[in-house]
Amino acid sequence: MAQDLVIGIDVGGQTSKCGVVDARGTVLAQTVIRTDTYDTVEPYIAELAEALNRIVAEAKAEGRIRGIGVGAPNGNFYTGTIESAPNLKWGHNRVEFAKLLSEQMNGIPVSLTNDANAAAVGEMTYGAARGMKNFIMITLGTGVGSGIVINGEVVYGHDGFAGELGHTAAVRHNGRACGCGKTGCLEAYCSATGVARTAREWLEMTDEPSVLRSLDKISSKDVYDAATDGDKLALKIFEFTGRILGEKFADFIEFSAPEAIVLFGGLARAKEFLSEPIQKAMDANVLPLWRGKVKLVYSQLKESDAAILGASALAWEL
Amino acid sequence: MAQDLVIGIDVGGQTSKCGVVDARGTVLAQTVIRTDTYDTVEPYIAELAEALNRIVAEAKAEGRIRGIGVGAPNGNFYTGTIESAPNLKWGHNRVEFAKLLSEQMNGIPVSLTNDANAAAVGEMTYGAARGMKNFIMITLGTGVGSGIVINGEVVYGHDGFAGELGHTAAVRHNGRACGCGKTGCLEAYCSATGVARTAREWLEMTDEPSVLRSLDKISSKDVYDAATDGDKLALKIFEFTGRILGEKFADFIEFSAPEAIVLFGGLARAKEFLSEPIQKAMDANVLPLWRGKVKLVYSQLKESDAAILGASALAWEL
Repeated sequence: MAQDLVIGIDVGGQTSKCGVVDARGTVLAQTVIRTDTYDTVEPYIAELAEALNRIVAEAKAEGRIRGIGVGAPNGNFYTGTIESAPNLKWGHNRVEFAKLLSEQMNGIPVSLTNDANAAAVGEMTYGAARGMKNFIMITLGTGVGSGIVINGEVVYGHDGFAGELGHTAAVRHNGRACGCGKTGCLEAYCSATGVARTAREWLEMTDEPSVLRSLDKISSKDVYDAATDGDKLALKIFEFTGRILGEKFADFIEFSAPEAIVLFGGLARAKEFLSEPIQKAMDANVLPLWRGKVKLVYSQLKESDAAILGASALAWEL
Repeated sequence: MAQDLVIGIDVGGQTSKCGVVDARGTVLAQTVIRTDTYDTVEPYIAELAEALNRIVAEAKAEGRIRGIGVGAPNGNFYTGTIESAPNLKWGHNRVEFAKLLSEQMNGIPVSLTNDANAAAVGEMTYGAARGMKNFIMITLGTGVGSGIVINGEVVYGHDGFAGELGHTAAVRHNGRACGCGKTGCLEAYCSATGVARTAREWLEMTDEPSVLRSLDKISSKDVYDAATDGDKLALKIFEFTGRILGEKFADFIEFSAPEAIVLFGGLARAKEFLSEPIQKAMDANVLPLWRGKVKLVYSQLKESDAAILGASALAWEL
């Protein structure tokens, strides 16, 4: 009998990436469709199903798809719905995503969660967290997401929305405004946008010389490039970012005593600048019993495939 | 056949409380022995076993004890050991507590965890958290302990020591020294000793009139009594304490999305002064999706029995 396969779908605000994946994490066929050209979910799902059937045919996987895993903003594992997702044109209200897609795909079961939880399952199935039963995945991208694994299972909580560590308080009083409406959130400091914001603030508040002064707009990539060239201000920005991450990681460790914290996402590429300050702040802020014991590791998934792999991993648990 | 029973043991620094408990949480027989008159664990365990046999006979429970549950400082669920417990004279090194006790009790299985985790299991089995699968127990006593329940199971983490929420940061920089060696821990502010410390600090730093000024030594009970009498400074102390608790609870909610936070312990008796500021700070600091949704509840276990009940509940899971 031919080997079982799964489909992974990463639903982003602009595009949706889909792939047919085998048990080893090889993407056998993949494609991308637009997410943002639909105002309602039904035509989007119809187009998505068509795309899936295309890659299933391409991978010669007809009849072998065991399940479909979906990572989507505000995806709820318990209900299979996407709720109030501001970045999805058709996702402002409650969308019965898993049900609608399964119906279009001849009843193949569909499992759905948010992107960070999907990344955690992906890392546990194919990546840096293989064999780990207790770890915390932190995604450092435009925002800061998290997927918490305890006893080998993603924590969804009472309502399906657990794991919003990007919105725990990094700065308790007078912190930066965050996109969520609160202030001082970890995400406001340690996301890619947070790093760019730190750069803009520090350039304005100090006279420190920096190659960043010559730029019109500053992105976290610019700060990274400057740090690579030895720019002192850029290096300090990563030190500051790493310190805040490490301080919060200490709190997270005291919550669930993970074996490791796994970092993923665009900003995690700056590991040569982040690892030391993170580790230092983690050790300085955690109870002695965990000092030096919790690993800090980086995603091992090929970045171009990671989103598909993470989502696909969900489907193995169906 | 006669009904199965369990034994619960609460190991404290000075005394150890033991009881024979039925499935409804009725304590059929109980006794107390000293913990602090032994320098090594063996004679303590021998005395403990003797006490247990006595209450088993008293409850006519011979042959009916299904298991023994133990709540002890620094108790490790995975290994059944007590490790580096500063408050236990015989517990400074690693003690094979569960194994030693089981041997003395004719092989009856023994399950052990720290006191706050035991309290969480007790509340889930007999108390305010019956039927809940996701909640966080916070014990407000001499220290601040926590037991986290996710999917109906206590979170022990990779090493068995998860759930040290009392040592997450309440004040990030220039916080109070905590007994654990760190600074700014929740426990340094919101334990009974933390409340007394706030009183002493505020009395020294301000001229505000208060009945507390006339006291030589101040305990959290004194602050509670003063608040009950309408003392403004005492009321402000509870408001401050409640605000810090609520701020931290918001972070905890963003971690595991519990159905409720359950408060337990001596200081939780001040609920008429704590509930409002806790709820207010929780709502102000949590993501909008959880605002007003996570219950704040108080332990329903009879206080004199609670420690025994919590420990005994562990034994039902053996």
